Amino acid sequence: MRLSRFFMPTLKEDPKEAQIASHRLMLRAGMVQQSSAGIYSWLPLGHMVLKKIENIVREEQNKAGALELLMPTIQPADLWRESDRYDDYGKEMLRIEDRHGRDMLYGPTNEEQITDIFRSNVKSYKDLPLNLYHIQWKFRDEVRPRFGVMRGREFLMKDAYSFDLDYENSKIAYNRMFVAYLKTYARLGLQAIPLRADTGPIGGDLSHEFIILADTGESEVFYHKDILSLETPEDKDQSPEELQALVDEWTSYYAAADEMHVAEKCTVAEGDLITRRGIEVGHIFHFGQKYSDKMGASVAGPDGKDVNVSMGSYGIGVSRLVGGIIEASHDENGIIWPEEVAPFKVGLINLKSGDDACDAACDEFYGKLQAAGVEVLYDDTSERAGGKFAKMDLIGLPWQVTIGPRGLKSGVVEFKNRASGEKEELSPEAALEKLIG
Amino acid sequence: MRLSRFFMPTLKEDPKEAQIASHRLMLRAGMVQQSSAGIYSWLPLGHMVLKKIENIVREEQNKAGALELLMPTIQPADLWRESDRYDDYGKEMLRIEDRHGRDMLYGPTNEEQITDIFRSNVKSYKDLPLNLYHIQWKFRDEVRPRFGVMRGREFLMKDAYSFDLDYENSKIAYNRMFVAYLKTYARLGLQAIPLRADTGPIGGDLSHEFIILADTGESEVFYHKDILSLETPEDKDQSPEELQALVDEWTSYYAAADEMHVAEKCTVAEGDLITRRGIEVGHIFHFGQKYSDKMGASVAGPDGKDVNVSMGSYGIGVSRLVGGIIEASHDENGIIWPEEVAPFKVGLINLKSGDDACDAACDEFYGKLQAAGVEVLYDDTSERAGGKFAKMDLIGLPWQVTIGPRGLKSGVVEFKNRASGEKEELSPEAALEKLIG
Repeated sequence: MRLSRFFMPTLKEDPKEAQIASHRLMLRAGMVQQSSAGIYSWLPLGHMVLKKIENIVREEQNKAGALELLMPTIQPADLWRESDRYDDYGKEMLRIEDRHGRDMLYGPTNEEQITDIFRSNVKSYKDLPLNLYHIQWKFRDEVRPRFGVMRGREFLMKDAYSFDLDYENSKIAYNRMFVAYLKTYARLGLQAIPLRADTGPIGGDLSHEFIILADTGESEVFYHKDILSLETPEDKDQSPEELQALVDEWTSYYAAADEMHVAEKCTVAEGDLITRRGIEVGHIFHFGQKYSDKMGASVAGPDGKDVNVSMGSYGIGVSRLVGGIIEASHDENGIIWPEEVAPFKVGLINLKSGDDACDAACDEFYGKLQAAGVEVLYDDTSERAGGKFAKMDLIGLPWQVTIGPRGLKSGVVEFKNRASGEKEELSPEAALEKLIG
Repeated sequence: MRLSRFFMPTLKEDPKEAQIASHRLMLRAGMVQQSSAGIYSWLPLGHMVLKKIENIVREEQNKAGALELLMPTIQPADLWRESDRYDDYGKEMLRIEDRHGRDMLYGPTNEEQITDIFRSNVKSYKDLPLNLYHIQWKFRDEVRPRFGVMRGREFLMKDAYSFDLDYENSKIAYNRMFVAYLKTYARLGLQAIPLRADTGPIGGDLSHEFIILADTGESEVFYHKDILSLETPEDKDQSPEELQALVDEWTSYYAAADEMHVAEKCTVAEGDLITRRGIEVGHIFHFGQKYSDKMGASVAGPDGKDVNVSMGSYGIGVSRLVGGIIEASHDENGIIWPEEVAPFKVGLINLKSGDDACDAACDEFYGKLQAAGVEVLYDDTSERAGGKFAKMDLIGLPWQVTIGPRGLKSGVVEFKNRASGEKEELSPEAALEKLIG
C-alpha cells in the first residue's frame, strides 16, 4: 500500500481525552476515531489489526472443532425473560422498542440466543458434543466508557457455547477451550495467565479468566513466578487426557485476581509470589444446566430419556485485544506490533520522494515485496525525513527499510527492527532476503 | 468437514412461513434460523456462503482502490440532525435512547457518519480522490419484513463512499464503482443489469441500480435483449477514459424498472424489448454536495480556497445476495450454487457408512481432497441412501461424488454435476483429477 493512497490520519500531539497508552496511540496512529462515548469507527489501519486478531481467534476455534455461525445483534426480549436475565441485567443492557412496540435489545452476550438455536434443532445425544461460536458486535451500555476500545460500549467479541450430555463431557469441552485459548494468545504474541475466576452474571461453578500483564491493567494479579515459564501447548489435537493434563499443569500454579486473592490463605513462598497488573482478554465459564433447565434445552440420552444439556461459554474480547496488545507492547515512540497481528510487516521509507534514483529504487523494492506477498506500507509522500521516521515508529510495523540518496550511492538500505531498535546497513538484495525469507 | 461433526439442521418439509424459493430453501437447508421477524441467525452453512460473497465483494472493492474501514452499528442522532434526515427517515429507523437519555440509532446507512470521519481528517485536495467502504450490519425497521433474508430488518451491506474535488472527478469515482459492480456480480456467477434509477431518500442527480433476473423478483424490469450479451469488463485497472467507455456501452441499451419505464417514451423495437422480473442487488448514487454542504465537509482546493467535496455512495446488499443467488439458481430439488460462492465445492456421499471397504475408500478420497485444499462436505452419517442424495441436492454443492459397495467392486465412483444433473462413472483417480485439476 502506498501511503499517498492510504487513509491513515495520524496525529502529532497526544489527544487530551486519552488516559492510557493504547487509547493515546490508537488515536495518534489513526487507527480509530470516536463516534460517540465508547463507540468507535475503525479506520483502515485499526481495521486491519482487528481482522488479523479475529482471524487468528477463528482459526484456533476451528482447530478446536468449534463451528462458526453468526447470530444477529438485535435479540427479542422474550428470550431473556425465559432465563430471568431480562430484569436482572440492569442498565448495561441497551433496550429497544421496535415500531410495533415489541421489546428488543442489543445483545451483550448470547447464552439465551444460542440455547434457543440448540433446542430448536438438536434432539439426540448422538448430535453431541457440539460447540458453536460467532464473532459478532456486542453492546454494553457502560456508565462511564473509557480507555478507548478497552472499555467501549460497542465491542467485538468471540463467544463460543458448548453443549454436552453430562458434566464429564462438558469438562472436556471446557478443557479444550482452555487449551485453545493458550494457543490463541501465544499466536497473538501474548503471554496470558489463566486465573481462577468469579462466575459473575453468567453463573456457573467453574470459570477462568485469561489476563495479560501490563502496567496499566485494570486489576491487580498475584501469581507464582514459574507460571511464566510454562510452555504453550503443542499445535495439535489433544486427547481428553492430554487436555486434562495441560489444564492441571497450568492451574497447579497459584494465580488469582485481587477479588479472589486472600493473602492469609495463599501458600506461595514470598519470593515466588509476583504481584502485577493485568488486563482481562478472555473468560471461560462452565455453567452446566443453568440455561438448559430454564429454557428447556434437552436431548434424548442413550436410554431414551430426556436430559437437559450441560453447557459452557467461552469469550474473547477481540476489539479489546487490539488495545491490550498495545498496552503490553509499546515504547515512548509508539506501538510495537507482534508480527502476527501487525497491519503490515514492513514499512518502506523513501527518504527523498521526487528524486528519480530514490523513487526508482523504492518502487523496485516495493514491487518485489508485493510480488512475494509481503504486506508493506510504502511512505512515498513528500513529508520530511524526521516526520516519516516518527510516523513509522508510531504505527509500529515490525520492520523498517529506509532508502535514501546517500545509501544508494554505496549500494545499501537501512534495515531496522522496530522492537529492538537495532539498525543495520544491507544491500537491497540482503534486505529482501530477510523479509521474504 | 464430516457431516457427523457439522451443524446443518435440514428440514424435510417445506416450512409454512416461506413464500419464495430462497426463503424456503435456506430454511430447509439449515442455512438460517429466524430469531424474530426479519432477523436471522446464520447457521454454519449459511454463514459460509455469506462470508464467500462478502470476500468477493471486498476483493473487488479493494481492486478498485477503495479502502476498508468499519463504522459502528450504533450512531448518535445528532449527526442525522445535521443532515436533516433524523426526522425525515421515519419509522424505518430504529431509534434508541441510551442510559443517559441520549438519542442514538441503529444505522440504516452511513452517509452522515462517513462525512463526519472525512471532515475531521481530510483538509486538502491533495488527499483526494478517496473512497472508503465498510461491510457492516444495518437495521431498517420494515413494517412487514418478509421473504427471509431478502427483505429482513437486520442485514449486511457493503457501502462505499467517494470524495472528490469536483463533479468531473466524482464522475470517475462513480464510473469506477459501476464497473467494479459488473465485475463483482460476474464473479458471483450472476448476470446483473444496471438500470437508471430513482435516487430516493439518499438524494442526488445520478443513480443506477443493479438487478438480477428471477421470476420471483420484486419489480418488473424492461430491457433491450442485447444487454445480456455484453461482456464483463476485463479484470484490470481501467483508465478514466476506459471506465467512461464501459459505462457508456452498458447504459446505451434501454433498461428500466417499472417506476422509471414509460411505455410511450420507450423507443426500443417491440421484438427487442424484454419484460421480466428482477431483484435489486446493488444501488449506486452520485449526490454531489448534498451532505458536504450540510455537514461542512470541505478541503482546500489548488487555489487555497475551501471547496465542499463532491460525493457518491455505493451499496451492495451482501446478505440479500445469498437469497438473490438462490432465486436465480435453483430447481425443484434445491439450491444450485455457483462454484465461487458454494459453501463446499464437493459433496462426498458414503453409500454404506459402517461398511469397512466403503469407509476406507471414502476416508481416503476425503483425505486427498482435504490435502489438496478442496472444500468438501463428507456425508459419513448412517442415514439411508435416498436421504443422503436428497440432502446433497438440497444444499446444492457443485459436485457430488458417491462411493458405494457396488461401484467399489468395479473400481468406480459416481460423479455428478449438480447444475446439469449429468452423472458419470469414473475411477477415484479420475474423479480426484477433475476436482483438484
